[in-house]
Amino acid sequence: MRDDFPGLANNWHYLDTAATAQKPQAVIDAMVQAMGRDYATVHRGVYARSAEMTQAYETARRKVAEFIGGREDEVVFTRGATEAINLVAQTWGLANLKAGDRILLSTLEHHSNIVPWQMLAARTGVEIDVCPLTADGRIDLDAAEAMLAPAHKLVALAHVSNVLGSVLDAPRAVRLAHAVGAKILLDGCQAVPRLALDVAALDCDFYAFSAHKLYGPTGIGVLWARADILAAMPPWQGGGAMIDRVSFAGTTFAPPPQRFEAGTPAIVEAIALGAAVDYVSAIGLTAIHAHETALVTALRDELRRMNDVTLFGPEDSAGIVSFALEGVHPHDLGTILDEEGVAIRAGHHCAQPLMEHLGVPATARASFGLYSDDSDIAALLRGIERTRRIFG
Amino acid sequence: MRDDFPGLANNWHYLDTAATAQKPQAVIDAMVQAMGRDYATVHRGVYARSAEMTQAYETARRKVAEFIGGREDEVVFTRGATEAINLVAQTWGLANLKAGDRILLSTLEHHSNIVPWQMLAARTGVEIDVCPLTADGRIDLDAAEAMLAPAHKLVALAHVSNVLGSVLDAPRAVRLAHAVGAKILLDGCQAVPRLALDVAALDCDFYAFSAHKLYGPTGIGVLWARADILAAMPPWQGGGAMIDRVSFAGTTFAPPPQRFEAGTPAIVEAIALGAAVDYVSAIGLTAIHAHETALVTALRDELRRMNDVTLFGPEDSAGIVSFALEGVHPHDLGTILDEEGVAIRAGHHCAQPLMEHLGVPATARASFGLYSDDSDIAALLRGIERTRRIFG
Repeated sequence: MRDDFPGLANNWHYLDTAATAQKPQAVIDAMVQAMGRDYATVHRGVYARSAEMTQAYETARRKVAEFIGGREDEVVFTRGATEAINLVAQTWGLANLKAGDRILLSTLEHHSNIVPWQMLAARTGVEIDVCPLTADGRIDLDAAEAMLAPAHKLVALAHVSNVLGSVLDAPRAVRLAHAVGAKILLDGCQAVPRLALDVAALDCDFYAFSAHKLYGPTGIGVLWARADILAAMPPWQGGGAMIDRVSFAGTTFAPPPQRFEAGTPAIVEAIALGAAVDYVSAIGLTAIHAHETALVTALRDELRRMNDVTLFGPEDSAGIVSFALEGVHPHDLGTILDEEGVAIRAGHHCAQPLMEHLGVPATARASFGLYSDDSDIAALLRGIERTRRIFG
Repeated sequence: MRDDFPGLANNWHYLDTAATAQKPQAVIDAMVQAMGRDYATVHRGVYARSAEMTQAYETARRKVAEFIGGREDEVVFTRGATEAINLVAQTWGLANLKAGDRILLSTLEHHSNIVPWQMLAARTGVEIDVCPLTADGRIDLDAAEAMLAPAHKLVALAHVSNVLGSVLDAPRAVRLAHAVGAKILLDGCQAVPRLALDVAALDCDFYAFSAHKLYGPTGIGVLWARADILAAMPPWQGGGAMIDRVSFAGTTFAPPPQRFEAGTPAIVEAIALGAAVDYVSAIGLTAIHAHETALVTALRDELRRMNDVTLFGPEDSAGIVSFALEGVHPHDLGTILDEEGVAIRAGHHCAQPLMEHLGVPATARASFGLYSDDSDIAALLRGIERTRRIFG
């Protein structure tokens, strides 16, 4: 499978898939074809190639919808997960939340699921509550249950933590939110490439993720929202393609999802995302999840034996292992590992409140993808050993 | 030069470059390399490949800045021109405009330079004035001069009309705006691929354009804004990369341009945009402009001789010719031309107020690119002749 990924050539041990996934050749090929011999704009051309590109673009939307268990008209293409969450904050949020209302987040959220709500709070007077974590680094839903009240209009949580790999008990989170009449948004960036998803069965309200973490291109992401919610949301960005009729006397807007896709869309990226969905689907998320879970277990078992290593997060982490090597700053570890052809991430992982909670400025993070294997773990362990020698 | 463009294979006569430009192989190759053997995230990795990608991403920003005569820290990568204009409306606009203030637009604006201001007006009570056109379809700056008053805080105009190709006298527009203390935003989507630009010499305040019309990728565009203006603008989208420090007690933001680039950026697209800038620069905008102007003159001369053709727009249109064939709906003309291997655009071109002004529901539009040549004009003329026979 590694041979499908040109980014993994020369036996590179890429353990930063949680930051961004390498792309299979099939995705690159889809991009080349869409940018090359198939290229035209969508939605507006009267010539056949433009109609074909429109069909390819909308087929990508259908593939995404099927992949996550949603309806086609519930899938909005955004610039990325960050834009998807900001879209919800600045449309649904501004239209529905007011001073006195509350939003429940958690300690482990990525900045992209904190800052948009803080900006909304600054604008509306909404207040933010922070659900604590269990000792092993999960969002503590018992605490959430005790905290939630009718004043809560929104619960916004990471489906999988980008630092700890902790998997949210999403069905329970949905039930808890709905029990007090709150909507629930799940940040699915790390979940979509790792867990089979059915947003309809899950009964959540908003689901956001990016394509580049799903083995797809940069520059595109997805907001899924329930059709009735999306239908009631005002537009956010004005421009071409999102309108019904424009006049200086007054403008009317298109129905979703077009209402939220102003301007020429990321046409080529959408088509390449469709190819990524095909690629991932062919392997299957059950197999990918089992594969990554086995790698997590193997790595955690090795690291647990080292008495100078601190492991963060729960045992059943989904594809992500954060740790610290005593006496070595994660950046130094990352730099030495790089010399060994091993790429990990070292830093706050855009989760500074979680770092504060863990009492560290940064962690070292190894994250797996469908192409990861035992050789990556072996290389990482060799690199840790060498680091220990250098710092010892 | 046509051989550089895989999208033009099989002698396709592509006359819809104003909608989106075909991509040279150099841009596709840059994309393939960035998505493949060079791929990694930017700004955050401690390993060498991530540092190299960061450098490539920031080099693209520098190329764009040099190309338009701006500073590197004045270039914000957005999803496209539409998002760039919405960013200005929803940050600078919301922070600086209030009821009683006025915005001056023109009759020929693209929806992307109308709707964001209407949405801002609905929110703030700002009023919109519409500058009329001259008889030959230019923005009438004499009228603008008479209309502009100290209440105007913003003038937002197309540098080149996407329907008529009319070129704004941008230096005069800037002087007129500044004379009443208004800021000026130029929608440069059609200008950047056609006219040499120096935003600093022009002394404008905001300049927006998309990459895909500049022979670059979809999914990315540029907002240029003067450094002092950008520095005073509040953030729009919250998330990773745009922050200084995040805490639930309060978050601080990064300086521009990062403040406006929340989340993982369109990394691959930025690098490919850099390659597009290289490609266009190597040919030179003076040569491109002369080439397209000669094609416009040749086509207009031919069409003027036909007594069943109405020509819209000024004689010195930049690369774009809108026209009507008597008794034939533009869509029918477009469909028949498609059978002849000629792609034009037929419709309202996201400029419904201009259509209303012209008194037509749609126009046929032929638009040129640097790869267009006489064979495209000949094919178009043959197609018009055939259409006439079919409808005659």
